[in-house]
Amino acid sequence: MSLLDDPATCVDTIDIALGERSYPILIGQGAPLWQQAVQHFPAGTSATIVTNTTVAPLYAEQLRAQLAPHYPRVDLVVLPDGEAHKNWQTLNLIFDAMLGSGADRKAVLYALGGGVIGDMTGFAAACYMRGVPFVQVPTTLLAQVDSSVGGKTAINHPLGKNMIGAFYQPRLVVCDLATLKTLPQPELSAGLAEVIKYGPIYDMDFFAWLEQNIAALKAQDGAALRHAVRRSCEIKAAVVSADETESGLREILNFGHTFGHAIEAGMGYGAWLHGHAVAAGMVLATQLSQKLGYLPDDRFLQRLLALLEKAQLPVQAPVLDAARNAERYLALMRVDKKTQGGAIRFVLLNPPGKAHTEKIDDAIVADLLNASIAA
Amino acid sequence: MSLLDDPATCVDTIDIALGERSYPILIGQGAPLWQQAVQHFPAGTSATIVTNTTVAPLYAEQLRAQLAPHYPRVDLVVLPDGEAHKNWQTLNLIFDAMLGSGADRKAVLYALGGGVIGDMTGFAAACYMRGVPFVQVPTTLLAQVDSSVGGKTAINHPLGKNMIGAFYQPRLVVCDLATLKTLPQPELSAGLAEVIKYGPIYDMDFFAWLEQNIAALKAQDGAALRHAVRRSCEIKAAVVSADETESGLREILNFGHTFGHAIEAGMGYGAWLHGHAVAAGMVLATQLSQKLGYLPDDRFLQRLLALLEKAQLPVQAPVLDAARNAERYLALMRVDKKTQGGAIRFVLLNPPGKAHTEKIDDAIVADLLNASIAA
Ligand SMILES: NC(=O)c1ccc[n+]([C@@H]2O[C@H](COP(=O)([O-])OP(=O)(O)OC[C@H]3O[C@@H](n4cnc5c(N)ncnc54)[C@H](O)[C@@H]3O)[C@@H](O)[C@H]2O)c1
Ligand SMILES: NC(=O)c1ccc[n+]([C@@H]2O[C@H](COP(=O)([O-])OP(=O)(O)OC[C@H]3O[C@@H](n4cnc5c(N)ncnc54)[C@H](O)[C@@H]3O)[C@@H](O)[C@H]2O)c1
Ligand SMILES: [Zn+2]
Ligand SMILES: [Zn+2]
Repeated sequence: MSLLDDPATCVDTIDIALGERSYPILIGQGAPLWQQAVQHFPAGTSATIVTNTTVAPLYAEQLRAQLAPHYPRVDLVVLPDGEAHKNWQTLNLIFDAMLGSGADRKAVLYALGGGVIGDMTGFAAACYMRGVPFVQVPTTLLAQVDSSVGGKTAINHPLGKNMIGAFYQPRLVVCDLATLKTLPQPELSAGLAEVIKYGPIYDMDFFAWLEQNIAALKAQDGAALRHAVRRSCEIKAAVVSADETESGLREILNFGHTFGHAIEAGMGYGAWLHGHAVAAGMVLATQLSQKLGYLPDDRFLQRLLALLEKAQLPVQAPVLDAARNAERYLALMRVDKKTQGGAIRFVLLNPPGKAHTEKIDDAIVADLLNASIAA
Repeated sequence: MSLLDDPATCVDTIDIALGERSYPILIGQGAPLWQQAVQHFPAGTSATIVTNTTVAPLYAEQLRAQLAPHYPRVDLVVLPDGEAHKNWQTLNLIFDAMLGSGADRKAVLYALGGGVIGDMTGFAAACYMRGVPFVQVPTTLLAQVDSSVGGKTAINHPLGKNMIGAFYQPRLVVCDLATLKTLPQPELSAGLAEVIKYGPIYDMDFFAWLEQNIAALKAQDGAALRHAVRRSCEIKAAVVSADETESGLREILNFGHTFGHAIEAGMGYGAWLHGHAVAAGMVLATQLSQKLGYLPDDRFLQRLLALLEKAQLPVQAPVLDAARNAERYLALMRVDKKTQGGAIRFVLLNPPGKAHTEKIDDAIVADLLNASIAA
């Protein structure tokens, strides 16, 4: 489909091939999108929309209007907003509401919001009466291109992020690009970091397309967004279909994330947006690939830096410890990877467009961190 | 295998056929059993035994000794005993302990106890880091013949039993008949109710065998117990393999349970043991089958009454409401089945040895309850 298609009327469909758990992702906006979406709504005795205090006033009534003709009853659960609420207490609010209103084994859950709402609602669906159908309606760019695809659901535990969860696939994902209009700029940029990620690990043509269209994306051009979301979902779908429960290949989706998680943890959760930390992390991972001889020169690094800057993303990783910065990064990465001894595994480019994972000696990583992060 | 096999040395294996989620159930006792069991222990970076304050002093050290040579580390989590603790708070104690000791995605959970421990540990395994392997070591008769087989895991919610859970299969079930020696008599009888259940729904030869061997079972004769546990697991396995996620056939395992659940709820949870309520429920379900013309005469009813009495199980359902007893039963059964309007579905015999489910008009059920339960 070319970019000349009218973004206001065209709807893309990507099929996630997982045998009997297969499902479509629909990408578009407004009425044409929802006309197709309703055909895929799972049958049920009731629908429960799970959203948060920020998204509810923006889009809950719109979604309720779409669902009302298809279910005998539509309930709404509005959770507090924020990663800090991605926990048991908040999850139980979903169960309390569903049991309180008599939702049964044929209830259908709708996640309306960003990745936090998607992850929690998916996990609630996995557990409620041992599993009910659910639909993702992601409203952040990050959720549309990443968290709503692939079936990873979870909540946090005080001792770690996403520690309690399930692999549980939605029945349908509806990406309404129109919802992105209200997204704060830093959140849009954070989503772009995950979009950009798909280029170096899988498709350098897509990376080149992003270089050409980054201004249009930042300006929320409908056709550009549609292509970016579609291609991102296609790549994630291809990787996930080949490795549903993360036994190997799927790891390449974590390009930039080992360094990124260290930045998020080291700066204190919430200080850096996840996507921002991933951006700085991708720069380090590219530098590491180069140091190991997997990239012939620094041309790709320069292209990546230029693109991230245009996307208003940080390219410079922060100092986490004035005295022993590299050691601090290594310690945090070791916790993140649950590597007690031995070398840490990184996603590396070889060449750009193709990624693999490899354990790298601490000394090499420390060298790189010392060179790249000026104290 | 005949009953002449020495129960102290023979180990039975039943394979649960669920494709790549298949696993063996081993039934036996002592050293010969564990010699076979170790060959099926899932590989892992650590083992965590989950048990309770009653079972830990009896069997935790024994199990630890079996596991110690196979895992770099064996941890022990001792939960409070009782159905009242089958909830989030207690489940979180498992997660706290595992995360606290650094258990990773390759940790293996061992459930050592009755159905409460098995259901909670299975659900913890389903959720911990989105799923780790687990092994059932059931130590009640009910858990050996029923709850440890089939992959249903759950915790309770204040608004309903087993409302939050997962279908998640163990990698191995080890039924050590020797552990039943310490089981209080009422718990043994409660387990026998579930054993007896398998006869009328599936295998009248087994029912006849139970009639012959009920005294031996009550006396904890090793050979008799082994046969009863094996045949029960075989039948449950056959039903579960045909219907892993409870879409139809599996419902027949709930023979006597619709009436039984009403008794448990109506008397106040804990007042009647589940197996005791099921016994009285099976009598009512048999009477209902007879009333509907599915049984030619009352010969099977008489046999069931005699067997239940020998097993020290109640055969008379209690009055739940002096004035409007039938209405109270119907109301509770409607809640249990989440049937808002319309008739309630029962498991019926037609003939004994074969069960089906059917919606029965309230008036017919009320008639039966009024006749069967003298106020
Ligand atoms: N399951 C996965 O595979 C996966 C992958 C990546 C990330 N995640 C998870 O996703 C979460 C991050 O997701 P996120 O970046 O979407 O964060 P988020 O869900 O917290 O959303 C970011 C902010 O934007 C608000 N918002 C959402 N939609 C909006 C809209 N249309 N207009 C205005 N405001 C809107 C939210 O209320 C929130 O305040 C993390 O918890 C992360 O662990 C999961
Ligand atoms: N998952 C399923 O398919 C399924 C099926 C049926 C029942 N269940 C669940 O199982 C639970 C009931 O299981 P249960 O009947 O085993 O109850 P239980 O787990 O509470 O055990 C009964 C009592 O016996 C004690 N005990 C256990 N083993 C012992 C031993 N060897 N010696 C002495 N005492 C011992 C326990 O500590 C407890 O006090 C319920 O929560 C029910 O919902 C689940
Ligand atoms: Zn990410
Ligand atoms: Zn039962």
